[in-house]
Amino acid sequence: MCSVVGIYGNENASKLAYYALFAMQHRGQEAAGISSSDGEHIKTVKDRGLVTQIFKEDHFKILKGNMAIGHTRYSTAGDDSILDAQPVFARYGLGEISIVHNGNLVNAKEIRDELIKIGAIFQTNMDTENLIHLIAKNYEKKRLKDRIIDAVKKIKGAFSLVILSRSKMFVIRDPFGFRPLSLGKLKSGGYIVASETCAFELVGAEFVRDVKPGEMIIFENDEIKSEMIFEPTPKQCIFEYIYFARPDSNVFGKNVYSVRKQMGRELARELPVEADMVVPVPDSGVAAALGYAQESGIPFEMAIMRNHYVGRTFIEPTQEIRDLKVKMKLSPIKHKIEGKRLVVIDDSIVRGTTSKRIVRMLKEAGAKEVHMRIASPATIGPCYYGVDTPTKEELIASRLSTEEIAKYIEADSLAYLSIDSIVKAIKDKKDNYCFACFDDNYPIL
Amino acid sequence: MCSVVGIYGNENASKLAYYALFAMQHRGQEAAGISSSDGEHIKTVKDRGLVTQIFKEDHFKILKGNMAIGHTRYSTAGDDSILDAQPVFARYGLGEISIVHNGNLVNAKEIRDELIKIGAIFQTNMDTENLIHLIAKNYEKKRLKDRIIDAVKKIKGAFSLVILSRSKMFVIRDPFGFRPLSLGKLKSGGYIVASETCAFELVGAEFVRDVKPGEMIIFENDEIKSEMIFEPTPKQCIFEYIYFARPDSNVFGKNVYSVRKQMGRELARELPVEADMVVPVPDSGVAAALGYAQESGIPFEMAIMRNHYVGRTFIEPTQEIRDLKVKMKLSPIKHKIEGKRLVVIDDSIVRGTTSKRIVRMLKEAGAKEVHMRIASPATIGPCYYGVDTPTKEELIASRLSTEEIAKYIEADSLAYLSIDSIVKAIKDKKDNYCFACFDDNYPIL
Amino acid sequence: MCSVVGIYGNENASKLAYYALFAMQHRGQEAAGISSSDGEHIKTVKDRGLVTQIFKEDHFKILKGNMAIGHTRYSTAGDDSILDAQPVFARYGLGEISIVHNGNLVNAKEIRDELIKIGAIFQTNMDTENLIHLIAKNYEKKRLKDRIIDAVKKIKGAFSLVILSRSKMFVIRDPFGFRPLSLGKLKSGGYIVASETCAFELVGAEFVRDVKPGEMIIFENDEIKSEMIFEPTPKQCIFEYIYFARPDSNVFGKNVYSVRKQMGRELARELPVEADMVVPVPDSGVAAALGYAQESGIPFEMAIMRNHYVGRTFIEPTQEIRDLKVKMKLSPIKHKIEGKRLVVIDDSIVRGTTSKRIVRMLKEAGAKEVHMRIASPATIGPCYYGVDTPTKEELIASRLSTEEIAKYIEADSLAYLSIDSIVKAIKDKKDNYCFACFDDNYPIL
Amino acid sequence: MCSVVGIYGNENASKLAYYALFAMQHRGQEAAGISSSDGEHIKTVKDRGLVTQIFKEDHFKILKGNMAIGHTRYSTAGDDSILDAQPVFARYGLGEISIVHNGNLVNAKEIRDELIKIGAIFQTNMDTENLIHLIAKNYEKKRLKDRIIDAVKKIKGAFSLVILSRSKMFVIRDPFGFRPLSLGKLKSGGYIVASETCAFELVGAEFVRDVKPGEMIIFENDEIKSEMIFEPTPKQCIFEYIYFARPDSNVFGKNVYSVRKQMGRELARELPVEADMVVPVPDSGVAAALGYAQESGIPFEMAIMRNHYVGRTFIEPTQEIRDLKVKMKLSPIKHKIEGKRLVVIDDSIVRGTTSKRIVRMLKEAGAKEVHMRIASPATIGPCYYGVDTPTKEELIASRLSTEEIAKYIEADSLAYLSIDSIVKAIKDKKDNYCFACFDDNYPIL
Repeated sequence: MCSVVGIYGNENASKLAYYALFAMQHRGQEAAGISSSDGEHIKTVKDRGLVTQIFKEDHFKILKGNMAIGHTRYSTAGDDSILDAQPVFARYGLGEISIVHNGNLVNAKEIRDELIKIGAIFQTNMDTENLIHLIAKNYEKKRLKDRIIDAVKKIKGAFSLVILSRSKMFVIRDPFGFRPLSLGKLKSGGYIVASETCAFELVGAEFVRDVKPGEMIIFENDEIKSEMIFEPTPKQCIFEYIYFARPDSNVFGKNVYSVRKQMGRELARELPVEADMVVPVPDSGVAAALGYAQESGIPFEMAIMRNHYVGRTFIEPTQEIRDLKVKMKLSPIKHKIEGKRLVVIDDSIVRGTTSKRIVRMLKEAGAKEVHMRIASPATIGPCYYGVDTPTKEELIASRLSTEEIAKYIEADSLAYLSIDSIVKAIKDKKDNYCFACFDDNYPIL
Repeated sequence: MCSVVGIYGNENASKLAYYALFAMQHRGQEAAGISSSDGEHIKTVKDRGLVTQIFKEDHFKILKGNMAIGHTRYSTAGDDSILDAQPVFARYGLGEISIVHNGNLVNAKEIRDELIKIGAIFQTNMDTENLIHLIAKNYEKKRLKDRIIDAVKKIKGAFSLVILSRSKMFVIRDPFGFRPLSLGKLKSGGYIVASETCAFELVGAEFVRDVKPGEMIIFENDEIKSEMIFEPTPKQCIFEYIYFARPDSNVFGKNVYSVRKQMGRELARELPVEADMVVPVPDSGVAAALGYAQESGIPFEMAIMRNHYVGRTFIEPTQEIRDLKVKMKLSPIKHKIEGKRLVVIDDSIVRGTTSKRIVRMLKEAGAKEVHMRIASPATIGPCYYGVDTPTKEELIASRLSTEEIAKYIEADSLAYLSIDSIVKAIKDKKDNYCFACFDDNYPIL
Repeated sequence: MCSVVGIYGNENASKLAYYALFAMQHRGQEAAGISSSDGEHIKTVKDRGLVTQIFKEDHFKILKGNMAIGHTRYSTAGDDSILDAQPVFARYGLGEISIVHNGNLVNAKEIRDELIKIGAIFQTNMDTENLIHLIAKNYEKKRLKDRIIDAVKKIKGAFSLVILSRSKMFVIRDPFGFRPLSLGKLKSGGYIVASETCAFELVGAEFVRDVKPGEMIIFENDEIKSEMIFEPTPKQCIFEYIYFARPDSNVFGKNVYSVRKQMGRELARELPVEADMVVPVPDSGVAAALGYAQESGIPFEMAIMRNHYVGRTFIEPTQEIRDLKVKMKLSPIKHKIEGKRLVVIDDSIVRGTTSKRIVRMLKEAGAKEVHMRIASPATIGPCYYGVDTPTKEELIASRLSTEEIAKYIEADSLAYLSIDSIVKAIKDKKDNYCFACFDDNYPIL
Repeated sequence: MCSVVGIYGNENASKLAYYALFAMQHRGQEAAGISSSDGEHIKTVKDRGLVTQIFKEDHFKILKGNMAIGHTRYSTAGDDSILDAQPVFARYGLGEISIVHNGNLVNAKEIRDELIKIGAIFQTNMDTENLIHLIAKNYEKKRLKDRIIDAVKKIKGAFSLVILSRSKMFVIRDPFGFRPLSLGKLKSGGYIVASETCAFELVGAEFVRDVKPGEMIIFENDEIKSEMIFEPTPKQCIFEYIYFARPDSNVFGKNVYSVRKQMGRELARELPVEADMVVPVPDSGVAAALGYAQESGIPFEMAIMRNHYVGRTFIEPTQEIRDLKVKMKLSPIKHKIEGKRLVVIDDSIVRGTTSKRIVRMLKEAGAKEVHMRIASPATIGPCYYGVDTPTKEELIASRLSTEEIAKYIEADSLAYLSIDSIVKAIKDKKDNYCFACFDDNYPIL
C-alpha cells in the first residue's frame, strides 16, 4: 500500500514528516524514509523497519530545512527488494531530486525496457526510479515543472506523488485518483499533503481539501499553485474504504469509519440472518459490525479479542508467519459465545485460511452457529494499482463459489456484500470508483 | 500487576509457559522469566523486556524438563529494581527452588528486617526473596511442603504463588484471594495454573476451576493434591474486573468482558445523561461503553481510534513517556464527533491528566458536549496488594471533589459508578471483594 | 581505501567472498557487501558495519551461484554517503550487472556532469555508478566486454574493478596500477581476485600473479582470458607499503612486511640517532622498527602496548572519536621506558595530533629523550587515488617545517625517511610508483 | 581470571571504575559490573558482555557517589552461570554491601553446604555470595570490619577482594597473594585499587604499592588504614607473568613485559636451537620471543600476523568457537617463512590443538623446520585459584611426554622452559610463587 507525506514551509519539516509517517504506519511497515531540503541540498535517511525503529534524534540534524517528504513502504515483492526503500533520491541535470510514490504503474516494465534500451540503469525495483529517469532524460526542457508534467503523462497506473527539488515541492495525483491524497494547513505554519488525513491530527494540521484526480500542486516561494494536468476520470480505490484507510481518516471526501458502518448497515439489509449477536473480526470488521448490529437490531458484542502485542495479519510478508500470528492474535470470549448463533463480520476474504481458522476457533469456543458476513464482494482479481493482493490463483473466490467457500471455511453460512450495496453506502456514483478486484473491470491495464 | 504460570507434566513445559506468558503480557512488560526442572536441576532464563524479546529458540534447550514456572513483571519501583526479574531461584537446604509471585506483601519489610537481624542477605527488592528465606531458614522441618506452609503463614498480603522444586510444583493463593489464579488441564497432557484463563486458550488447556483463596495445590508424582491451608476470607481485587484482566479471561468465576459490560449497564442506570452517542476510551472502556449503550439506547460509536503501534498507557513507567504516548495513541473520528453530545466511557481516572487530554482532544474535534462516565468509583487510595497505583497525593480524587475534577478535565459533566452498582453488576456478595482503593477499607495492613 | 574481491567457479562463491572480505576488513570498516550470480539473476546483500556484523547465515541462501564479488568500504566523505555501499547493482540493456571498485576517479565529476547533461540520474556518491552508466549508455555495442573497455577508457584515475554479469566476471586494473589486485587459484576449485593476497590464505587459494596494470581478465565458460587494454605505465601507490596493506600480503610483487622492515633499515642508515631502544608505534610501526633495530644495533622493545578492544585509529571517521581512542588504545611500558632515550618509529604523520599525544605519553612515563623516526617522507599533499588523506591544510607537513613539527609534537628530534631511501628499500624503479602525497608529483589529475 | 577495581574519594568514581575495567578487559569478557555508593545507597549496574557494550551514559547518573567498585568476569563454568555477574550486592544487618572478587575459593562448597544447613539461600554460583553470607550471619559483631575479618578467615583459596559499604571500602588480599592487587593514587583525587596496574595509566593514577598478601586496607573518612590480618605466605601465581597480565602492568613487584622477555632469554640459554629466525605466536609470545632472539642472536621476525577483528583465543568459552577463530586470527608471512628454520615461541600449551594448527600452518607456508619453544613448563594440572585451565585429562602434557607432544603437534622439536629458569628470570625466591599447574604442588586444597 504505502503512504506518502510532504511538508512545505515549516522549520520542523522533517520532524512533522516523521510524525505523519508514524500516523500512517498501518499503510506499510517494511521500510520508511524521509528526504528534506534546506534550499541547497537534499538529504535522505531511509531504512528497513518501522518508523520508530529507523529514526534517531541525530537524523533530524541531517534532515534540515523547511521542506520534507516521507514514505512508509509496504512490501509487495520477494527478496529482490530487500534493499528498496523510498524516497528515491538522485542528482540529475537540474540538480537534486527526491520522490515518494504511493501506487503502482501498469506500464512500468514498458517504460523501463524503453529507457534501458537507450542506456538507462535501474538500481532498484521501484517504479519511482522510472519517474526520475523520465524527468532526467527530458533534458531539453529547462523547467522541472515541464519535465514532471511530461513524465507523468508517460506513466500509466496509480500514482500519488510528492516530488522534492532543492527549492520546490510538487504534488501529483493520477487522473483516476486511485490512491487518496489530501492537503492540509499546518497550525505551526506551512502545508502538509498526506495519503491519509489521520496524519493531520498528530501534526496539528487542518484539512483543506483532497488533491484532485489529475491535479498538480506546486509549492514554491511560500505559495501554492494548482493546475489540472490531466482530464480527471475518477476511479478511486474502493478497498481504501473496505480495509486500508484508518477509520479516523477522511478519504475521497468521506469519513472511513462512517462509510464502513454504512456498509455494515447495507450488509444487514441485503444479507439478514437470524442470530444472537453480531461479532466483528477485530479491528477491521468493527465499524461494519456496528452498522450491521444497529440495522438488524441484533446485539453487537466484541466477542473476539485482539492481542496487540503482535502486528497486523494481512500485512505480514509470508504465509508461515501469518499462520502463527493468527493463533497469537485473536481469541474468543468463550463465555459470550457458548451456545450462541453468531453473525461474524469481516472486511474481506483473501485466501480463506484466516477465515477458516476463525470459524474453527469460534466453534471450539462453543458457538452454535457461525454466519460469516463479508462487508465487501468476493475478491476475484488482483490489484494492479498498489494493493498487494495475491495472484488470482491464491484468491479463494476466483476458484470457488460462495457456497464452496462457506464449506471450506466451515461456516454455517457465508455471504458477501454486493457492489450495489457498497454504492449505496458511499452515496456516490459507482463510476467514480475502481471495483476491479471484485468485478474484473480494470480501468487501465 | 505481574502474572504467573506453572506447567506440570508436559514435555514442552517451558514452551507452554512461554506462550502462556505471551498471552498474559498485558499484566507486565518490564521483565519476564521462566524456570524449568528436569528432575535433577532447575534452570532459569530471565531478563528485562517483552516475552518475545527475551526468549530465543536456544533457551528452550536449557529449559528442559516437564515442569516449568514463569512470570511477567510489571515495574512498580524506581531504578533500584533495574536488575529484578522473576523467577527467583536459589540453592538451599533441600536442594533447589524457584518461585514466582503475583501480588504484594504488606509485612515484607518486617519479615525482611527480622531475617536480616539473624543474618540473612537480600540481593533483590522482590518479596519473593523473603519467601525463599523463610523456607530455607526453617531447616528443622524436613519436608518442603511443611516449610512452605510455615512460610506462607508468616507472610501477609496478596500472593498467588507457584513454587518449583526439582520434582514438585506447589501453587498457593492467599486467604483473601486478592489476585486471580486458575487451574487448567492441558490437552497435550499435564496441568497449567495461570493468573488469567486467557493463557489457557493459546496453550490448548481447559479451565478446571479457580485455585481457592487459602488453598495449596501440590503437583507430585503425576498427581494433584489439594489442601486448604488458610481459612478463606475472600477479598478479591475488584480492579481486575475494572481494568487489569483481559476481557476473554474468566476471573473470580466470572467472564471479565461480561462483568465490564454489566458495569456499563449499571452506569447507564445510575448516571444517565442525554447525549447523541456513547464513545469508549479504547481499549479498556469498550465493554462498559457497550453496556451503557445497550441500556441507555444511545448509539455506540468507536469514535476514538487507538493506534496500536505503541504500548499501553497505564503500564508505562514514567509520566513523561506517558504524555507523549497519549498523543500518539488516541485519535478522534472528527466526522462522527462534530456537533455531537458524547458520553465518554473510561474504566477509571487516576491522575486526571489523560482524561483532561482526551476531553480537550474531543472538544477540538468539534464535540458539543463531553460527559465523562467512569465505570468505577473515584480512586482515592493506593493499592497495597499488587496494583501499581500512584501515591494518595497523586490520585486526583483524593484531593478534589467530582465537580472539581470535572472542571479540571474540562468535561461538561463527570460521574463515577457507585460501589453498590458494581456489586449489582458482579452479582456476588460485596464482602467477597476488596474495594480498598475506592473506600479506604483495607482488608489487611 | 576499500577492498574488492571476486570469486569465479566455486559453488561456495559468496561464502568465500565473505571470508576474503573478513581478511581485508582493515581496508574498510564502514560498509560491506556481496553480489552473486547463479547464471540467471544477480542478488546483492550490503549494509553499513563490519563484515561479521552484516552477514547472517540466511544471506547465503540468497547469495547463490558460483560467482560472487564483494567489497569493504572505507568512508571518505561526509553524511551524504550514509547510504552508500558497494557492490552497485543495476538492470540495464544487457541484463544485470554488479560492480565493485577500489580506487578513486579524478574525472568522476566531469563524467557525471556529462552524463547528467544527457539525462542520467545518480543515486549515490560512488564512482562506481559512473561506470555502470557508461556501460549502459553505450547501447550500440552488443557485447558487454566491448562496452566495459569503452567505459574504462573514459575514466581516469585509480581503479581496481571486478564486474559481475549474470554469466561472466571481468577484472580490470587501471594502467597506473595505483591499487593492488592479485589473482589466485582456489584449492576447492575456481579462481579468486582480491585487493590483497592475505585474503588468499583464509579461503585456501594459491597466489598466481598480480593483475597487471592495464590488464583485463575475463572469466567465462570456466576459462580465463587476459587482454592488455591499456598501455601500462605503472605508478603503484607507495602508501600501500607504508601503511595500508597487511604485512602478510604480497603487494606489487613484494611482501609488505619485508618492504617495511627494509624501510626501517634505510631509516636507520639515513637517520641514525644515539638511543637506548627502538620502540614501534604499534601495529603499523612494528616492521620498520624491527628493521631499524637490526640495522642500528639498538635493542628493539615493544614498549608501547596496544589495546585491541578498540578499532584502528587512522580509520575512524571523525576527529573526536579518534582523540578518545588514542587514549584508550596505546599505553607505555613505563618500567622499560623510565630514564631511557627512545627512537620511536611510526609509519607516517598526518595531522600531528596523535604523534604529539604519543610523545607526551612517553615523556610522562619517564622517557629521557624521544626521537621520532618516520618510515616515510613528510606527507604534504592529499591523495586523489583512493587513500583518504585529509585536505592539504590539515596535513601538518604542508604548513610546518620538520623542525617546527618536532617542536609541535614535543619530540627531542624528528626525521623522515627520504624518497630515495624508500626506493632503495623496495629495490625497484622509482618511476613505477606514485609518491604524489610526498612530492606533489601527481601522475594524473 | 577476572579483574577487580575499587575507587575511593573521587567524584567521578564510577566513571573511573569504568575506564579501569576497560583497561582490564583482557582479564574477562563474559560480564562486567559496577557498584557505587553516594553515602546513603549502593547502586549496581551489571550485565553480560564487554565493558563498552554494557555501560551507557545514563548508567552513570545512577552510579553516583565518590566510591565505586567494579569487576570484569571471565566465564569458568557452564550454562548454570548464565545470569552470574559481579558485583554481588545485598542488603543485610548493617545496611548495604557490595563485593567484587578475583580468585577462587577451595572450600566454597564446604562453606556453602554449612551455610545452607543453617538456612542460607544461594542465588548464584559465585564464591562472592559465600562471603556476603558469612559477613551477614555474624550478627553478634557490630562492626563491619570485624565481620569481614571473621569471614575471610573462614574462606580458603585465592581472593583479591574489594568490599563496598555505604561509607567505606575494604580491600583484602589472601595470605598467599595468589592474584595481584595494587594500590594507586589518583591525580584527580582519591585512591584506586586494581588487579593490574595497567588500569592506573588510563585513569591517571600513580602506583603506590602492591596490596600485601594477608593485608586489609580500609578506606574511611578520607583516610587509609592498613592492617595485616593474615600471616603472609606468598604463593603468587606464576601464570600471571606467563600469560594473563598485560605487558605494561607491574605485577608482584615486577614489570610483566620485562619478566616475559627475561624468560625468553632463559629459554634461549636452556633450550638453544639452530635456526634462521625467532617467531612469536602473537600476542602472548612476543616478549619472550624478543628475549630469546636477543639472547640467541637469531633474528626476531613478526612472521605470524594476528588479525585483531576477532577476540582472544584462550578466552573464548567453548572449543568449537575457538577452532574457527584460530583460522580467522593468525596468518603466516609466507615470504619470510619459506625455506626457513623457525624457532616459534609461545607462552604455553594447553590442549595442544592450537599449537598443532600453528605448526601445520607454518609448514604449509613453506617453513623448513618448526621448533616450538614454550616460555613455561609443561602444564600438567588444573588451577584451583582462579585460572580457568581445563581438567587434567584435557591437558595434553598430563597424558603425553614432551616427545609425544612434539609428534602430535607435528613440530620438528619441542621444549619447555624449566621452573628453575623461570625462577632465574623473575629474580626472586621460588617459594614466593605458586607453580602448582606445572609441579602439582598445590599450596592449599
